[in-house]
Amino acid sequence: MSVQSVKIVNILEGLLAGNDQAAARNKERFSDAGVLAVNIMSSPGAGKTSLILRTLAAVQGTARIGVIEGDIAGSIDTERVIAAGATDAVQINTGGNCHLEANMVDRALDTMDLGLFDIMVVENVGNLVCPTHWALGEHLRLCVLSTAEGHDKPVKYPQMFVKSDAIVLNKIDLIAMVDFERAFFYPSVRALNPEAPIFEVSCRTGEGIAAWADWLLAQRKRVGSGQWAAGSDSIP
Amino acid sequence: MSVQSVKIVNILEGLLAGNDQAAARNKERFSDAGVLAVNIMSSPGAGKTSLILRTLAAVQGTARIGVIEGDIAGSIDTERVIAAGATDAVQINTGGNCHLEANMVDRALDTMDLGLFDIMVVENVGNLVCPTHWALGEHLRLCVLSTAEGHDKPVKYPQMFVKSDAIVLNKIDLIAMVDFERAFFYPSVRALNPEAPIFEVSCRTGEGIAAWADWLLAQRKRVGSGQWAAGSDSIP
Repeated sequence: MSVQSVKIVNILEGLLAGNDQAAARNKERFSDAGVLAVNIMSSPGAGKTSLILRTLAAVQGTARIGVIEGDIAGSIDTERVIAAGATDAVQINTGGNCHLEANMVDRALDTMDLGLFDIMVVENVGNLVCPTHWALGEHLRLCVLSTAEGHDKPVKYPQMFVKSDAIVLNKIDLIAMVDFERAFFYPSVRALNPEAPIFEVSCRTGEGIAAWADWLLAQRKRVGSGQWAAGSDSIP
Repeated sequence: MSVQSVKIVNILEGLLAGNDQAAARNKERFSDAGVLAVNIMSSPGAGKTSLILRTLAAVQGTARIGVIEGDIAGSIDTERVIAAGATDAVQINTGGNCHLEANMVDRALDTMDLGLFDIMVVENVGNLVCPTHWALGEHLRLCVLSTAEGHDKPVKYPQMFVKSDAIVLNKIDLIAMVDFERAFFYPSVRALNPEAPIFEVSCRTGEGIAAWADWLLAQRKRVGSGQWAAGSDSIP
């Protein structure tokens, strides 16, 4: 078991190093075009797509949004975000792969004109573990958690919360019905990540979306200001 | 990219073949002891632990339950299931690993006396993708989905639904509040898996738990009857 584990780690390290290089190239493409790139990660069904749909409505006329959709299978989300006003959208089907990788995003970008966008939203495969290892070239990593998943998720899936630049707590309209305790959740997150802003929203009712969208638009202004050099960490 | 993909696949195939052998040995241990082994899989926060807690209460005095808890980090679930009446429970912390593997279960079994149990519940890491590839030696694979995750999950994560022997649809008490459409969900599941029983439950209210627990106890009687030979597929 120990020998096998070492092998896996070495192979994975090589793959991750190659991925990091491809991610740095993607980030340079985004930054050169003045496009803020956001990698949205969550468990299946936490509300990534719903958040994108709400964000599209909130920034309509203010920012042009592109969307790269990552799914194991299917294209229903891409159809939905285009109908909701995305400037362009591309679907990546990963086959069995449980996360997006930088070269998949690279190939998606080859089919899009980055001059058309202010913000590019990359919706990762629903998975609270594996996407944390694979940089895509994003400026910001966003974790979406739904109240229905429970307040103990930071304890059980710490890396996602360590690595996120912002956290959206969705389905806040359900909070009383699912026994989600803020008094447990907030200290758990802060023990892992002292600074990431946390936005409580309901993509169903629209509550909290304006504050989130305002913050996102403010981040857009930092691209090209030198705060995000190509290849640098997402937190300046 | 294509060369690298082939390498990954070959390495993974080797690892999976080794895992399948370890899983077959685990299954033989379970079967020889007359213990029904159930691998519970779901997204984070769908309700695996809550279902185990409800099941413990429902079968109290009828069946002795052991629990193997798989988490990236933490042991709060193990403490909860022991307090709720599990005969014994062991925590596996996977470190960064996004799924349980058969050799982890093997080592957990080394710390338990299989003669003490009728049913062994193995709670996998919350992940709707990766655990489908890694057999643990279970007789039954159970997928738990919560209504809050949405009715489109079978379309997006098909392998989980293809490979499950039974499906629990949890948080049925929230169904009207989360726009979950049975008319979309059921045909999607049936297109992937014509036969797995689907149990609608609410671990919060207890609705539907009795029917689920009755079915589980009936499966227990099949262990040792020759319907589950060691190493055979979980569906006889």
